[in-house]
Amino acid sequence: MSGITSESHIWTPEKGLQSGGYISEGVISRPRQVKAAQDHVYDVIIIGAGYAGLIAARDLVNAGRSVLVVEGRDRIGGRTYTIKHEGFNYEMGGTWVHHTQPYTYRELMRYDLHTKLIKTRDDTQANNYFSINVPGSKRDISNELSGEIIGKVWRLFVDIDGQEGRTVCPLPHAQLENPFVNRKDVEKWDSISCWDRFEAIKGQLNTEEQGVLKALLLSITGGKPDLKNSGFWDMIRSHAINGHSYDMMDPIWLLYKLRDGQSHFARLMFEEAVGLGLEYTFRTHVEAIKQVNEGLNLVRARDGRVFRGRKIICTAPLNTLNSIQFDPPLSRLRQEAANQGHINFMTKAHAVVKGSGYASWNGLAYPNELSAAYGDGLLPNGDTHLVSFGADYRDEFVLEEQPERLVAAFKKFAPFDVKSVVFHNWNTDPYTQGGPNFMPPNFTTKYMDALQKRQGNIFFANADWANAWRNFIDGALEQGALNAHHVIAELRKEDKEAQPSRPSL
Amino acid sequence: MSGITSESHIWTPEKGLQSGGYISEGVISRPRQVKAAQDHVYDVIIIGAGYAGLIAARDLVNAGRSVLVVEGRDRIGGRTYTIKHEGFNYEMGGTWVHHTQPYTYRELMRYDLHTKLIKTRDDTQANNYFSINVPGSKRDISNELSGEIIGKVWRLFVDIDGQEGRTVCPLPHAQLENPFVNRKDVEKWDSISCWDRFEAIKGQLNTEEQGVLKALLLSITGGKPDLKNSGFWDMIRSHAINGHSYDMMDPIWLLYKLRDGQSHFARLMFEEAVGLGLEYTFRTHVEAIKQVNEGLNLVRARDGRVFRGRKIICTAPLNTLNSIQFDPPLSRLRQEAANQGHINFMTKAHAVVKGSGYASWNGLAYPNELSAAYGDGLLPNGDTHLVSFGADYRDEFVLEEQPERLVAAFKKFAPFDVKSVVFHNWNTDPYTQGGPNFMPPNFTTKYMDALQKRQGNIFFANADWANAWRNFIDGALEQGALNAHHVIAELRKEDKEAQPSRPSL
Repeated sequence: MSGITSESHIWTPEKGLQSGGYISEGVISRPRQVKAAQDHVYDVIIIGAGYAGLIAARDLVNAGRSVLVVEGRDRIGGRTYTIKHEGFNYEMGGTWVHHTQPYTYRELMRYDLHTKLIKTRDDTQANNYFSINVPGSKRDISNELSGEIIGKVWRLFVDIDGQEGRTVCPLPHAQLENPFVNRKDVEKWDSISCWDRFEAIKGQLNTEEQGVLKALLLSITGGKPDLKNSGFWDMIRSHAINGHSYDMMDPIWLLYKLRDGQSHFARLMFEEAVGLGLEYTFRTHVEAIKQVNEGLNLVRARDGRVFRGRKIICTAPLNTLNSIQFDPPLSRLRQEAANQGHINFMTKAHAVVKGSGYASWNGLAYPNELSAAYGDGLLPNGDTHLVSFGADYRDEFVLEEQPERLVAAFKKFAPFDVKSVVFHNWNTDPYTQGGPNFMPPNFTTKYMDALQKRQGNIFFANADWANAWRNFIDGALEQGALNAHHVIAELRKEDKEAQPSRPSL
Repeated sequence: MSGITSESHIWTPEKGLQSGGYISEGVISRPRQVKAAQDHVYDVIIIGAGYAGLIAARDLVNAGRSVLVVEGRDRIGGRTYTIKHEGFNYEMGGTWVHHTQPYTYRELMRYDLHTKLIKTRDDTQANNYFSINVPGSKRDISNELSGEIIGKVWRLFVDIDGQEGRTVCPLPHAQLENPFVNRKDVEKWDSISCWDRFEAIKGQLNTEEQGVLKALLLSITGGKPDLKNSGFWDMIRSHAINGHSYDMMDPIWLLYKLRDGQSHFARLMFEEAVGLGLEYTFRTHVEAIKQVNEGLNLVRARDGRVFRGRKIICTAPLNTLNSIQFDPPLSRLRQEAANQGHINFMTKAHAVVKGSGYASWNGLAYPNELSAAYGDGLLPNGDTHLVSFGADYRDEFVLEEQPERLVAAFKKFAPFDVKSVVFHNWNTDPYTQGGPNFMPPNFTTKYMDALQKRQGNIFFANADWANAWRNFIDGALEQGALNAHHVIAELRKEDKEAQPSRPSL
């Protein structure tokens, strides 16, 4: 059950850039399954077939609802998909899972995938060390020592209250609304940037530590290299949801992957839904959503087709909300948030480097187009797969135009023999217009409530405004599941209320 | 929506022991709602209305299935319920929740309870210290120092591989079946007791540390005071699921409670199911379950009633499985496991002590009927609530017969003025016959697979054999949800296969 995707780029010295044509379980080869008559009113139309849309669709058809999924791409998975190339699963977007992530783990157990994991970290290969390349320090150290250095700078960075944020963000799932915090405290820490916080603590760091911290932060935020548009609150929130524990950071963020790839997981969910009657139309770009009356909403596609639904679940990411015309328009605050957008325009790239030794290697570099890189498994031919994250370098280059620049960026970490570079440019992708949400200053306190709110019969479900694992796969599943739950309950109530007025037979 | 429970005991010096008569949201005042005719075949009969039974029932009626819940008690919640007394919510069983628990947190968000939490830990009261009373050491120390001591002894206890168990139990949700472990390693560590492990490391501990470790372990296992029947593997597994991080232990095990009590949470789930047609009969003791043929199973109650179901979900805990007569009988391994039983016969007791100061206090004592005690909130009158856990002291006394002995046990920690003692004796409770599962040596590797298996059309769902948060509320929700999922899929398949043979109209 795979298809050929039009997405993903692979650059090799021999062939240059090859775009698309790769195998992915995410691709749905038969792009349309729309059985209902054109004027059929679906119970629910779901815009987007990422994890939020998939779980919502699955839960809704399980509840007996008629559902249509409308997706612009040729595949499911949204910001998460896997291509299989030369026997290796490349995770082009969202990758790692951890048992602290409630929606993800519930689903993994449901599909019996919780036993089918592989690990990124591998201590058994030759080059089991950590490379630092920052102003004033270029050296290779042990992974133990790098853990100590990163642990020190990270803890200092988030330690705003002598308790690593426990007093200010005790409940990461409920940052603004809980009995333990003073909203003013949250607003205060939400108002500053990562640059502000860096400036406040840099006196306690030596030159190397400063460079390490900057590289680390940029690999997380995907913001501008000066860190000024990266909000500080998302770091406090991230540390809180990692259990306020630095020990949990690597295991949660970078350790466990699905053996058969994220697209396999997504496909299981999709196939379950299709088996229960889900209808879908891929390669269908939604242009407009119009709420006609309480029981009818219209979704207009670019190809002129119009779909009718009682409820709409829109899973478009924050940075793309403006590309859909809403009538009535988005609420003022949601519109403002979409206009400003989040700031994560990260550079994510994979490399294949010659030999197996680097599977145990990690590194940080600053300044560099890629800030952090990790050995992440071996190809069948014994070469090493590396995965790497960097800041927002859109001002300087476009990945598709200068893929060689990624090769140079990889070589800043260590003397790799780079055999290929693999990437999806999420920043030029019209259906994402950036990576997963990392917020600028003031965003959480100003917009989070507004982003989660429904508008009439349109529900908004995206990882970008999840309660818990915001900008993780789990956040997408959370938003899809929660919104589906509300929609199921509401449809049931409406149907019940409508029943007495129907003539009895 | 509360009722008066026949359970719970409260002892005061003035009135002695008062049993039952307390307010609980868990009590279902109208104990029967059975609408179907006596020979109706339910899609599913669920034995037990604890969290496993409740979530299974809710998911099944949400999928449109006819469901009957049969429960021996007068209330929902099983090993978890709340009584409200003098304005305070006493959690008589399962208490704490944490966002690392996937099923729990998903449900809390679904019912909008994730913002309605309170904390056990409170640093603001007068007696903000930790009392140790073990052989060779009786002293009060800071909570910081106690954290260091307990952290040291715990880490040493679980550090079987220089990585705190990461190599032996990398995936706590899949201990036996995953690509990273050698089953022989698991069998080796599963074969020893906590006493064996203690003996192996005690040379690295001073006298006080030895006492602290013993008290801590007994408060976790609820086994015999010599630690010989407490399996060591459950400690490795527990540490793994806490992220292999001692920092996470207190926050996960002892920090966040539901403001309105566990019974409120359970009630929301129950009422949702009832609203969707769930039928139920409380105070109904199941004596026998008979599988007649592929489509019919009989559940016989002590009062002579017989209920018919296509599928059965039995949520009886491990130590009570033998009290139901199964025909055909339980599998050999399940029967063996039930005969041996788990070893947790803990002493759990609450105390109200005079004054607010002790709300910030904690302590460990060994040997003592109560091993660990924690300040846990204030009553409306300003007195302190303490909660405490101890080992298996059934050989020495029965709580209901000698409640004063609990007063003495509390006073071993600190000079409390004990105004009342509150408890539910789970060990004499016929529907639990012990606390939550803590396993003896060899149990995981020998029986875990067998306990999770279905037998014909009987599914077994209980926290005692959960994949993940075994013996936690989350484990009950996991087992209920997973089994309901399998049952829903199977019923759907059967109905589909049966359809063509029906005459079309």
